[in-house]
Amino acid sequence: MVYRYALLIAYDGTSFGGWQAQLNAPSIQTTLEQALSVVLRRRMSLIGSGRTDAGVHANGQVAHFDAPLSMDLSRLRLSLNALIPPEIRVLEIRQVPKEFHARYSAISKEYRYHLHLDPIPHPLKRLYSTHLRFPIDLNLLKEGAKRFIGTHDFTSFSNKAHEGSAAKNPIRTLFRIDIVPEEGGVRLEFEANGFLYKMVRNITGTLIDIARGKIPSSSVEAILIQKNRSCASPTAPPQGLFLEKVTYPQTYTIRKK
Amino acid sequence: MVYRYALLIAYDGTSFGGWQAQLNAPSIQTTLEQALSVVLRRRMSLIGSGRTDAGVHANGQVAHFDAPLSMDLSRLRLSLNALIPPEIRVLEIRQVPKEFHARYSAISKEYRYHLHLDPIPHPLKRLYSTHLRFPIDLNLLKEGAKRFIGTHDFTSFSNKAHEGSAAKNPIRTLFRIDIVPEEGGVRLEFEANGFLYKMVRNITGTLIDIARGKIPSSSVEAILIQKNRSCASPTAPPQGLFLEKVTYPQTYTIRKK
Repeated sequence: MVYRYALLIAYDGTSFGGWQAQLNAPSIQTTLEQALSVVLRRRMSLIGSGRTDAGVHANGQVAHFDAPLSMDLSRLRLSLNALIPPEIRVLEIRQVPKEFHARYSAISKEYRYHLHLDPIPHPLKRLYSTHLRFPIDLNLLKEGAKRFIGTHDFTSFSNKAHEGSAAKNPIRTLFRIDIVPEEGGVRLEFEANGFLYKMVRNITGTLIDIARGKIPSSSVEAILIQKNRSCASPTAPPQGLFLEKVTYPQTYTIRKK
Repeated sequence: MVYRYALLIAYDGTSFGGWQAQLNAPSIQTTLEQALSVVLRRRMSLIGSGRTDAGVHANGQVAHFDAPLSMDLSRLRLSLNALIPPEIRVLEIRQVPKEFHARYSAISKEYRYHLHLDPIPHPLKRLYSTHLRFPIDLNLLKEGAKRFIGTHDFTSFSNKAHEGSAAKNPIRTLFRIDIVPEEGGVRLEFEANGFLYKMVRNITGTLIDIARGKIPSSSVEAILIQKNRSCASPTAPPQGLFLEKVTYPQTYTIRKK
């Protein structure tokens, strides 16, 4: 008998090499796998809903693993949290149907990107937002954001994960990009049925250029059509980005809201 | 001719040994003095409104220095911020009357203490709040807070800064302790005409014991009367504490609000 379990995870990505194993820095995934292996006394592997890059944070990453036993999940959560550093917390563990897959069962994902707009960057925001040294026009930002909504081939806004490894299907549906004012700046809330590699940071980079008046919002369509990464603006830095929530069909619900 | 200047400063105290020079860790004061000395090409010293301990943060620390020249203050601010690490930011520099003194001219100070009350501590709050592993009663917290308001001898809630160096005058007036709910917990806002060494953290430690039902709120009066630090609860940890604002007479106004 094999049971499948899903974890809801939050982390401060500052000092990690990202979700997935890296040669030069510890990864969130490896850190969690090692703790799981210690607690369950066997080599465990964990499958995440998707990887986050070095320096990117998460409030609602989801991952699953299989184990040949039924467990006291609240005790397992305590044990894991006692073994991993405080930068990572397992918020919840649930048993899920065997068909559940952290990556393939997801029907939508929400990312948030925090822009810090105060003239002088506040020390406490430096690791959790991106400071802009120049003024931006929020109306232009909103106008630009609208141009991305819908179903598009997002090749121009995606980096290749590995040499020659472009996503098989570069078409995604972006449900919304909300621009929400917050203390000291504004956050961009992205919700889509899925995101390509570096897609949120690449769209954000282009939106910043639109909001500062460097390129017109109408150029979004032209860039999308080109299907060429070099037509879009530079990638926005990682520390402003948070994986906020992964949504699954009701039957699989992971997060209590 | 000597001019006096006041700095408004924010910092993340996590990796510093506190405001004042320490042997084993860099201090905020020393870091700023060194940058000032580089920019002004002479040995500079800085007088703060008061020291904050290792790990304590500030949104509105104030300090002053004297210099025998008139300066372009916005350029000076940029130069200083370029020299110091991003954990510290000079938010503003103003010329002030020669009678101004960052410490002695202050008429009130506000500190904030953040309590994180979620069952599982969120990774992003770990350096900027204190997580409580047990439930607390907000009504008891409010009741306890009320008992501290007014003019008292706060000896029982003060540590000696150095061997045998009790404050000459341990009487302070606490104007308010507001309990303000915030995401994931509650913050305590303390405003007084001045604070003794570790007074906010010692009061907070006792308020936590009251809020968890360990001691009755009526014991505050008894502890105050004892004038003995050992009668009060342990000192609350530093990372939840922020020096929020120092207020001066109108003629000296430092902070734009």
